[in-house]
Amino acid sequence: MPNIYVALLHYPVMNKNGDVIESAITNLDLHDISRAAKTYGVKGYYVATRLVDQVKLARRIIGHWTNGAGADYNPARRRALELIRMAESLEDIVQHIAGQENVQPKTVATCARKFDDAVSYDKMRELMRDGKPHLLVFGTAWGLAQETIRQADYILEPIAGRTGYNHLSVRSAASIILDRLIGR
Amino acid sequence: MPNIYVALLHYPVMNKNGDVIESAITNLDLHDISRAAKTYGVKGYYVATRLVDQVKLARRIIGHWTNGAGADYNPARRRALELIRMAESLEDIVQHIAGQENVQPKTVATCARKFDDAVSYDKMRELMRDGKPHLLVFGTAWGLAQETIRQADYILEPIAGRTGYNHLSVRSAASIILDRLIGR
Repeated sequence: MPNIYVALLHYPVMNKNGDVIESAITNLDLHDISRAAKTYGVKGYYVATRLVDQVKLARRIIGHWTNGAGADYNPARRRALELIRMAESLEDIVQHIAGQENVQPKTVATCARKFDDAVSYDKMRELMRDGKPHLLVFGTAWGLAQETIRQADYILEPIAGRTGYNHLSVRSAASIILDRLIGR
Repeated sequence: MPNIYVALLHYPVMNKNGDVIESAITNLDLHDISRAAKTYGVKGYYVATRLVDQVKLARRIIGHWTNGAGADYNPARRRALELIRMAESLEDIVQHIAGQENVQPKTVATCARKFDDAVSYDKMRELMRDGKPHLLVFGTAWGLAQETIRQADYILEPIAGRTGYNHLSVRSAASIILDRLIGR
C-alpha cells in the first residue's frame, strides 16, 4: 500500500485574476475527498485554513459525522471523515506527517496548468513505490499559488481529458488523481 | 471522440435500506459532473427527476450559470452547465438521444456492487469504439434501483480502490469512470 497523504489548502490559493487569496471551506470538499481518500487507502487528509471561524465550522461538520447523529446514521461516512485533520498551513501539515513518519514527506503539487518540469502519472506511481511518505497538495478556488507550486518537491502533470477544457472541480481532480496514482 | 452521454437519476434510486425512493437534487452534482463531462467530451449530461419543484430549482441554478450573472463571472462554468438537460425519466433520456442520433443508445448502468455479468473498464472502452451512442447511467442516494440496473444493456464493474471501502460520492465516481473510459 503506498504511503500517501492528501492536503487541501484554502491559503495560499488564487482567485480568477491570479491574486493570492484565502478561500472558504466547502462542505462537500470534506465529504467527497475524504471518501475518495478512504477508498484508495490514503493515511490522512489534511484541510488547511488560517481562519478561526472556518476551523470551527469544519470541526462542527466533521463532528456531526464522526461523533454526532451522522455517525450512527451513516457509519461508512464516519470512517471517511475520521481521516480529516484540520491544520493552519502546508508547513504545519508537513511537520505533522514528519512527526508520525520520522521523515519529511515529499510534497507533490497539483495544478490544472502544465509546467515544463511536471512529472507524469506513470513516473509518480513509480516514485511512490519507495514506500516513503508523499503528500498530494490540492488548492481550492483557482488553484494553488505559484510560489507553493514552485516550492513543492514535484509538480504533477495536469489531468488531460479529451477536449482541452481543464476546469474540473477539486473534488473531481482529487478523485481522478488518486485513481491514477493508487488505483489498480 | 467516443459518442457518450451521461445520465444522473433521482428516481428510481435506493435509500440505505434498499427501498426505492426519489432523491433531492444536489447543487454540486450539476456543477462537478457537467465540468467532468465537458473535460472528457461527453455530448450531453441529463439530470432526471419527476418532481416539478426540483426541476424548477435545477433550472434556476443552471440559468444563473448559463444566462445569468454566473455566465459573465465564469464563462468556463457556463460552457460546462450548458451540457445539462433536465428530463423526467431514463426512458425520456433514451428517447431524446435516439431522436438526435437516429439510433437508441446502449445503456451502461453504474453501481458500487459487483455483478457477475459486469463489464470491465477495458472491455467497455473497446465496446464504445464502435462510435455508436452509449449512455452512462448514475444513481444518486444509495445508487440505482435493482430493476434499472438489470434493464441496462451493460453493467459496469465497480470502482475498486485499494481497501474494499466502496462509498465514493456520485461526483467522484462519475469523474473516475469518465477518466477510465475516455481519458488518454
